Amino acid sequence: MKVLSSPEEIYAQLDFLRRQGNRIGLVPTMGALHDGHLSLVREAKRECDIAVTTIFVNPSQFGPNEDFAKYPRTLDSDLEQLSAIGCDFVFVPSNDHIYPPGHTTFIEPPAVAANWEGKIRPGHFRGVATIVLKLFNMLPARVAYFGRKDYQQVAVISAMVRDLNVPILIQPCETVREPDGLAMSSRNRYLSAADRVRAIGLWHALSKAQSMIDDGFRNVAQIESAMREILNKVPVDSIDYAAIVDPESMEPRTDLDSPVVAIIAARVGTTRLIDNSLLRIQ
Amino acid sequence: MKVLSSPEEIYAQLDFLRRQGNRIGLVPTMGALHDGHLSLVREAKRECDIAVTTIFVNPSQFGPNEDFAKYPRTLDSDLEQLSAIGCDFVFVPSNDHIYPPGHTTFIEPPAVAANWEGKIRPGHFRGVATIVLKLFNMLPARVAYFGRKDYQQVAVISAMVRDLNVPILIQPCETVREPDGLAMSSRNRYLSAADRVRAIGLWHALSKAQSMIDDGFRNVAQIESAMREILNKVPVDSIDYAAIVDPESMEPRTDLDSPVVAIIAARVGTTRLIDNSLLRIQ
Repeated sequence: MKVLSSPEEIYAQLDFLRRQGNRIGLVPTMGALHDGHLSLVREAKRECDIAVTTIFVNPSQFGPNEDFAKYPRTLDSDLEQLSAIGCDFVFVPSNDHIYPPGHTTFIEPPAVAANWEGKIRPGHFRGVATIVLKLFNMLPARVAYFGRKDYQQVAVISAMVRDLNVPILIQPCETVREPDGLAMSSRNRYLSAADRVRAIGLWHALSKAQSMIDDGFRNVAQIESAMREILNKVPVDSIDYAAIVDPESMEPRTDLDSPVVAIIAARVGTTRLIDNSLLRIQ
Repeated sequence: MKVLSSPEEIYAQLDFLRRQGNRIGLVPTMGALHDGHLSLVREAKRECDIAVTTIFVNPSQFGPNEDFAKYPRTLDSDLEQLSAIGCDFVFVPSNDHIYPPGHTTFIEPPAVAANWEGKIRPGHFRGVATIVLKLFNMLPARVAYFGRKDYQQVAVISAMVRDLNVPILIQPCETVREPDGLAMSSRNRYLSAADRVRAIGLWHALSKAQSMIDDGFRNVAQIESAMREILNKVPVDSIDYAAIVDPESMEPRTDLDSPVVAIIAARVGTTRLIDNSLLRIQ
């Protein structure tokens, strides 16, 4: 496994491989890797000839009161894990390689960024879309892998790639969960033992939505209430949203005539968690 | 010369040529072609194996009170001229190919877009940057050619390409002028005979700035005053700006210790004209 730190090194190492016909798969991450990330790299290995992981804690996607400074940074362990599963290249740029002095161009993200995370974290998807487009331009990848745990992020990136005609395929991958159902997340390591127990409430609420649909419930408001009820019973410390939305537009849905996504963001202790589940209708 | 109308056709025709090692040069235009555009195509022919011109009157770069609807559209004559000088491909997309329903992602342009045209035409560079990035993503070009007549546009596109790591070379080309000095522009055809005479005032003002510097003047405010004086004597109908700016940042300059650009935007009759000149110091 080779570690690269500049766009020039990427080009020197990867363009020749691309021109030889290798299919390159890209897994953009902010490090603090867990089995969710590793499953993306494994998928890239399975589908492509060369897997490239990027590790960069992107400042432009954090709000001024968010956890950029204390976001977990575990580079040694990240590299060890990536090497162990056969990742071919890791791109670990410095901030100056990504945002040199004078960098002022950003992406104004698509409409699907407006609600939910976009509303609660102003500027978040602007930062996400910008760094992701930059990585797509730097790396000659054919496919990029993203976890469905960040459902709206995948929707934003997919819409951006479509709108701006970016020549890359976006491959969403299933959320990886702990045995009890908690979605893997770099932020889970913030959880105290007691909070870890409460964090499972998000998955219970999502599971409840599915079981209500399986039981024939068709009233969206009723299902959303049941999700909140479970979250409040845990209790979580606050709920940002618990909603049933359209899987494409992410607009609120009032019918269940076609598949929907249940999405939740809630705070447990000082940790903000998000999760979602694509719900099967009957 | 082949005329293409969809991104799929571009790919079918051009990707094979690119993979065979051809260097592809791109000339994005809004049609209504004049010798300025043709000089860009000739430069692309000279430097590249294949020259591609695009013709698309981009609605997103026009303000609500601007001339989108009446912008000159002269496709037959454009194609004839391009064919005559050996252009290889022309991409003439429909609006739906460029902005299909749901298109909502845009580029937030770099800082160099803030002043001058950016201030007077809000949203203009957002539209320019977005269409240009889309064309860069659709077309496998190695170099793109732009006329220096739109000096700030070239600066915006160059900064965007640098900031977003777009793998293309931006090649600015000299402004082509009528024998009396008027910069060629699609909007010149709006000018009445009397306005055509007055339009030359922009070039006279720019030339005055150079001759004052040649004569040893070093006071920027004095040179800007002289430019305005010439424009007012013509007279033009209004002056949006007549300024001496830094050729990189386009910030106002107060010294002449290194090269500067003189930029002018003025209205002659109902036609808004812009022009500029890179000034040699001593």
